[in-house]
Amino acid sequence: MKNPLEKRSVFVYLRIAALIEQQILDNTLRAGDKLPSLRTLCREYGISQNTALSAYYHLESNMLIEARPQSGYYVRSGTRKLPAPAASNPAGVAAHAGTDQLVARVYDSLGLGGHLPLSLGTPAKELLPVAKLNKALLQATRELSGSGVVYDKNDGNERLRRQVARRALAMDCGLSHQDVITTSGCLNALSYCFMAVAEKGDTVAMESPVSFGMLQLAQALGLKVLELPTDPATGVDLNALEAAMKRTDVKACLLISNFSNPLGSCMPDAHKRSAVGLANRYQVPLIENDLNGDVYFGAHRPRSCKSFDDSGIVLWCGSVSKTLAPGYRVGWVAPGRFKEAVARLKLYHTISSPAITQETIAAFLETGRYENHLRKLRHTLQANLHRYNRAIADYFPDGTMLSRPQGGFVLWLQLPGPTDTISLYEKALACKTGFAPGRLFSLQNQYNNCMRLNYGLVWDEKLENSLKILGNLVRHPERGNQYSRTL
Amino acid sequence: MKNPLEKRSVFVYLRIAALIEQQILDNTLRAGDKLPSLRTLCREYGISQNTALSAYYHLESNMLIEARPQSGYYVRSGTRKLPAPAASNPAGVAAHAGTDQLVARVYDSLGLGGHLPLSLGTPAKELLPVAKLNKALLQATRELSGSGVVYDKNDGNERLRRQVARRALAMDCGLSHQDVITTSGCLNALSYCFMAVAEKGDTVAMESPVSFGMLQLAQALGLKVLELPTDPATGVDLNALEAAMKRTDVKACLLISNFSNPLGSCMPDAHKRSAVGLANRYQVPLIENDLNGDVYFGAHRPRSCKSFDDSGIVLWCGSVSKTLAPGYRVGWVAPGRFKEAVARLKLYHTISSPAITQETIAAFLETGRYENHLRKLRHTLQANLHRYNRAIADYFPDGTMLSRPQGGFVLWLQLPGPTDTISLYEKALACKTGFAPGRLFSLQNQYNNCMRLNYGLVWDEKLENSLKILGNLVRHPERGNQYSRTL
Repeated sequence: MKNPLEKRSVFVYLRIAALIEQQILDNTLRAGDKLPSLRTLCREYGISQNTALSAYYHLESNMLIEARPQSGYYVRSGTRKLPAPAASNPAGVAAHAGTDQLVARVYDSLGLGGHLPLSLGTPAKELLPVAKLNKALLQATRELSGSGVVYDKNDGNERLRRQVARRALAMDCGLSHQDVITTSGCLNALSYCFMAVAEKGDTVAMESPVSFGMLQLAQALGLKVLELPTDPATGVDLNALEAAMKRTDVKACLLISNFSNPLGSCMPDAHKRSAVGLANRYQVPLIENDLNGDVYFGAHRPRSCKSFDDSGIVLWCGSVSKTLAPGYRVGWVAPGRFKEAVARLKLYHTISSPAITQETIAAFLETGRYENHLRKLRHTLQANLHRYNRAIADYFPDGTMLSRPQGGFVLWLQLPGPTDTISLYEKALACKTGFAPGRLFSLQNQYNNCMRLNYGLVWDEKLENSLKILGNLVRHPERGNQYSRTL
Repeated sequence: MKNPLEKRSVFVYLRIAALIEQQILDNTLRAGDKLPSLRTLCREYGISQNTALSAYYHLESNMLIEARPQSGYYVRSGTRKLPAPAASNPAGVAAHAGTDQLVARVYDSLGLGGHLPLSLGTPAKELLPVAKLNKALLQATRELSGSGVVYDKNDGNERLRRQVARRALAMDCGLSHQDVITTSGCLNALSYCFMAVAEKGDTVAMESPVSFGMLQLAQALGLKVLELPTDPATGVDLNALEAAMKRTDVKACLLISNFSNPLGSCMPDAHKRSAVGLANRYQVPLIENDLNGDVYFGAHRPRSCKSFDDSGIVLWCGSVSKTLAPGYRVGWVAPGRFKEAVARLKLYHTISSPAITQETIAAFLETGRYENHLRKLRHTLQANLHRYNRAIADYFPDGTMLSRPQGGFVLWLQLPGPTDTISLYEKALACKTGFAPGRLFSLQNQYNNCMRLNYGLVWDEKLENSLKILGNLVRHPERGNQYSRTL
């Protein structure tokens, strides 16, 4: 298979650096390994000494390698490989959301648009193609009938729906634009899906831990949530999924199939196929939240459960909120056999969605602009992930466990000992840093020693310092005030 | 009181024409009355003969006056004054929405973005300031932090919220921007309001007839609807409102206080004050749909129920969907004491709303652009209303009754005899025209001899012809095929 990074850049030194970085990420080159000498590098790749040096400088500035005087370049040591957390094991009791005042208080201070990006699950604005989107928006006012000032069709902007279908086809998912309805972001798509298949008092099954947005939505709709054991690498436990689907009170199942939030798990194709099989056997609609699928670090985009769905039982939801423009609120759903119900819900709750932002995103997807942007974004995220791994290994205590996301924006940490990340969160706030406490990702009293970190940020000294402060707080929570004083 | 049309135009002939038009609309000049001679007009206003002639030409082209050879100009005759329908008298039984397949079929063919603007309740795109909005949108990408690509605050764009509060203040409604939450259009605001104050199975009281969007929303939320007797001029019957609020199953009351859809009724200030008093006495939240308030034909904008609300029991909803940009989906709500609940619902269902379109609208409201546009829009609508009155008097049968809206976009017709507007609707479709059948505006089997017409369109021969076809169909429904053949 072709190396996805090979064509990333027109600069030879960046291509060489990317190849070496890939070997480090693959563990082909391990911490402490000596890198080829500059002379060898020149010979192997047929490049000049300057180019070779630039490649090593680039890797060094990304803190992947280090120069040792009189000796050469080495893969940066001290990147302890932290173990991954074990699969979760929540209680098999469906719970109503929203009773925990403490959790509510933390939700509030998490604040959207707040000053604590480490706690959020979206990319920083510096990683988004703002100027290019503005240009596309201007173009959309010219190309769109009525400039988007008049009502769009209920199903949404057709150009965008065609692009969503085209991209789905590229991952073996046979959709037409007629199967797709646009929404106000992925969450709004999920909201309509839940409303279409479940009623107040019903139970829905989800992975555990799960993004608190999913729990809040269930709360708003009066749904009970059955949390399912989930592996940090492969996602939901299929036996638990089957047991849930057998239950008559479970009216739907929600899976974040690719690079789940917060675990970063990605269901293998075989699991996806099985999950769809179970949904068909027990006739339980499978709502698939696939909003992170485009942010993969592997060779290609992972498939969706939808791509294994012949019967229309999968409601596939996505958006560009994690890759292009969270603030545009552009998402979509291919609701399968529930399409009419979802379309009616959209009509009844909001008539239609804004066409101008959808047209803008459609134009972006049509050309190579989206792929170009994704390539850069993935590279930045992958490099960040590496840096976070190193920093957490450096600053956090022994016994810290760390998820190994193969895509997406978030890391899941399980801390050693009796750490309570809710109280730690208050201390972190005082130190002007943040994270999302693990307790938020469940309705049960669990994950109190866990936290989620966002690595979709611009890596700089301040960010490294934030991670250092967090690590110190975890090591010595009693010294919280001291850290905040030294800021 | 100053004539609102006085400063409408820099052209003297248009100012003169507007003054005369006002006199016709006021019935100071009546159908058949002779207008002053050109010489008299010149003397009275101190204008040239050319200017006087231009004023009369303008009124003539608007079909308000006609020239009679050798005699002079006359107010156009044939504008029979049709009687207004009586107040409605629906059954006092709360009904569940959405069981009527026939109605559902008509809903579908009403189609948003369809080719039958007469059946819709929004202004035609030609009446909207598309180019100016495009310019404002471009400006917004420059002025808005992150160009609106990143998440906005949960409450919504602050600049827009300040403008909404400022405009509310101008009608004696003391709001600050902190009282306002932006939404995806007015319907989305109403959706959150209903969710905040009522649960599946509860009953909500509304005017009757009422915009079918309200009924559909209630259906989507599993709410029962109690329809209240309503006067085409003054809106909901206050005794009926009180009786409804006394009922323990009625959890909320929805009123379209200004220029209701479809009746065009406007609650007098005293009624608004009483309605708020009742809401307080019986502690039943009053959801106020005030999306048409800016489109008034009188001297000033009517007040809202919210402006009489001291206790926060009124949830005031509005938008620019009827005046600026339906497709932008920009609306808002001042939810009073339910603000926290509404904010949470918005967060849980869609996180935030698109900032870029809200910023665009905010910029429009800040300057005089909105008022300028409104002035033109109101003038066009008022002229259209006059033309519709005339055309309906000309083409529809005796016994037709007609609402007398003092603002908004829609006319309500009650037809004589056993007319069934549902079956008439099919015939109108075949003749490539349309209307909204009265049956859609109730959950009970009533208003079958009524129809709603949109006059927010560009008046031209085609539109007049559509009204003529409709009138002929009403007179001779059996000849439907013949009319469609002659198209």
